[in-house]
Amino acid sequence: MSETSPLAPATFPAMPAIKGVRLASGAAGIRYQGRSDLMVAEMAPDTVVAGVFTRSLTASAPVDWCRKALNGAGAQVLVVNSGNANAFTGKAGLASVERTVEAAADLFSCRPSRVFVASTGVIGEVLPDEKLTAALPGIKETLDANNWLDAAQAIMTTDTYPKGASRTADIGGVAVTINGLAKGSGMIAPDMATMLAFVFTDADIPAETLQELIAQGADKSFNAITVDSDTSTSDSLMLFATGQAGNVQDASLDDFKAKLGDLLIDLACQVVRDGEGATKFISITITGAEDDQAARRIGLCVANSPLVKTAIAGEDANWGRIVMAVGKAGQKADRDKLAIEIGGVRVAADGMVVPGYDETPVVDHMKGQEIDIRVDVGIADGQAIVWTCDLTHGYITINADYRS
Amino acid sequence: MSETSPLAPATFPAMPAIKGVRLASGAAGIRYQGRSDLMVAEMAPDTVVAGVFTRSLTASAPVDWCRKALNGAGAQVLVVNSGNANAFTGKAGLASVERTVEAAADLFSCRPSRVFVASTGVIGEVLPDEKLTAALPGIKETLDANNWLDAAQAIMTTDTYPKGASRTADIGGVAVTINGLAKGSGMIAPDMATMLAFVFTDADIPAETLQELIAQGADKSFNAITVDSDTSTSDSLMLFATGQAGNVQDASLDDFKAKLGDLLIDLACQVVRDGEGATKFISITITGAEDDQAARRIGLCVANSPLVKTAIAGEDANWGRIVMAVGKAGQKADRDKLAIEIGGVRVAADGMVVPGYDETPVVDHMKGQEIDIRVDVGIADGQAIVWTCDLTHGYITINADYRS
Repeated sequence: MSETSPLAPATFPAMPAIKGVRLASGAAGIRYQGRSDLMVAEMAPDTVVAGVFTRSLTASAPVDWCRKALNGAGAQVLVVNSGNANAFTGKAGLASVERTVEAAADLFSCRPSRVFVASTGVIGEVLPDEKLTAALPGIKETLDANNWLDAAQAIMTTDTYPKGASRTADIGGVAVTINGLAKGSGMIAPDMATMLAFVFTDADIPAETLQELIAQGADKSFNAITVDSDTSTSDSLMLFATGQAGNVQDASLDDFKAKLGDLLIDLACQVVRDGEGATKFISITITGAEDDQAARRIGLCVANSPLVKTAIAGEDANWGRIVMAVGKAGQKADRDKLAIEIGGVRVAADGMVVPGYDETPVVDHMKGQEIDIRVDVGIADGQAIVWTCDLTHGYITINADYRS
Repeated sequence: MSETSPLAPATFPAMPAIKGVRLASGAAGIRYQGRSDLMVAEMAPDTVVAGVFTRSLTASAPVDWCRKALNGAGAQVLVVNSGNANAFTGKAGLASVERTVEAAADLFSCRPSRVFVASTGVIGEVLPDEKLTAALPGIKETLDANNWLDAAQAIMTTDTYPKGASRTADIGGVAVTINGLAKGSGMIAPDMATMLAFVFTDADIPAETLQELIAQGADKSFNAITVDSDTSTSDSLMLFATGQAGNVQDASLDDFKAKLGDLLIDLACQVVRDGEGATKFISITITGAEDDQAARRIGLCVANSPLVKTAIAGEDANWGRIVMAVGKAGQKADRDKLAIEIGGVRVAADGMVVPGYDETPVVDHMKGQEIDIRVDVGIADGQAIVWTCDLTHGYITINADYRS
């Protein structure tokens, strides 16, 4: 494992217990030695579940399974392994999922359709599910309401730190808790719920509403981040609600929605902060676009540009590359009204560098770890914010030598 | 300037004179010191011209000019500078182009609309056109039919070698010559005629036909290459035909079209071979796609994937990343029929690794400089070939430190 990202949060957050959720982790020896690689969550019998998954056309076998299991029957067990993605493994991969699900269903005495699975790691190698199922009974013995950090650690792959977040929300005068875990550091790109993230709450919310909430939340968080424009075959974001907080179902969900959204952005930005080789966290705000979707597309085009990302890695206030990236996004932009701010300093306006532009404060800003870029494209009122990281030698080192 | 790319051709090709074309180059001191940065081509008065340009919405001032000048009035002078792209320079940029064009029109006694210009280099800085126009008269004195290498050198920016190609074609029993020059090494991506390329022929071809020929040729060459997915604001490909070879206009152009297509692929691949930091030249052939356009989109998605490109840089036969890239392309692909060959060796078929897969010959292939990847996506008969290079530490080094 590499050194912890310089952009990592100082500590893993305090995560309170969630009524109806117990977690455990252990070492199944699937690929890694000397570390945990399997997490299990057991949820109360009335738990409902919602999820969004990769839009990849080569989705993994576990993603296929979870999509099918999201049929309103609820959830009782979540089994997640790291080290092997069980993707592009054909019929063998499906059989592997089925054996895992059956073993978990037997062990926890529930229907297979209430078992959810996720796998992350190398693509194209058959998952040694016998190692996984052999480890399950022992791991079950250690289930506990406070194992959040252990669970976050078990699902790490190239991650350099475990990712968690917690929020409290009010639903009709009742306090509910939301805890989330995530993993991801490369192969992160939007247009889907990138990486793996699992969110748990004790709120009592119907499955259909839960699905709306997670889809909307994903859109403003995991669909607004990018590390390398690449898209995993395994990306999964699931939200489990045990219903044990005792809130009434018809109370306003406004606060819950806001806190969930905030938690998802927190987790998504933690993924970006662990971007492979990242040394700078970059916020890109686009305004003046044709609509919000156009703004996000332009933002992602800037965020995915290798030339923009390498310029930032080099602490070079090369705003010409931002212009280039806006130009290639294929969205309406008025070249001669384009305005750019870096670190709060106006760099360009009306399609050219501002008169008497003094690069000094911008150069200072580029030396920091948090880079702020704002672009107004001069068309209408659409806006969006996206997050990414820089592209460094570290990315090359990690990815030119991942499998070996 | 960096060391010559390890993928460069052994020598600059022999390029014969083209009847009606004379070239010259010189040092205008626009940005670089101690090298030429300006090329001029003078064409015979009846020369017709065709061109395709960047689809960037932030196109440079010279691109705006050339689009306007492509009105059937023909061409007599081409002026190209390196060091400054005159892009995102607002009204000052347009004024700079107009002064350049007027100076050239005066000097060569032609209408301004017969002067074509191109600029390449840094974006967002006003072009010091007075240096350029001051150098023109001296450069004009050195015009010669054999200055192809000098011309190719004058338009280089981060290029590590000059790029040229020559072909002979038969039109109705008359031999015609086609010479092409190109520059480009980064900010190269398709969906447009990437980089700068100038092609000259003595063939007698009407302007409308010439435009069809260059558009078709660009589609199979410069629109099928990518270095870093980034798109310049200045990309221009122009084709000048002096008409002095004496062929009849209504003879078959089949051979000319084939040779032109071949020359354009040659130039485009030379650009890829000079990709910033490139150590491997990669051909990606996609078959079995819904149609040829879908095949090219899938191919480019594989070619632009940082994870695929870094794996190849690391000489890692990580075909799982190819699967991932096919999956994210958004084009129809049958995961369970997907087949992959690397270096002629079948790696995966029917959606999983082939039985008894022996990595040895594939690992050997990955150690070479020429990487061949073939993917069949199992849908229909669409096919395409695209070319790219690997993503290495060299790319980061060059691009994190370009301006300074």
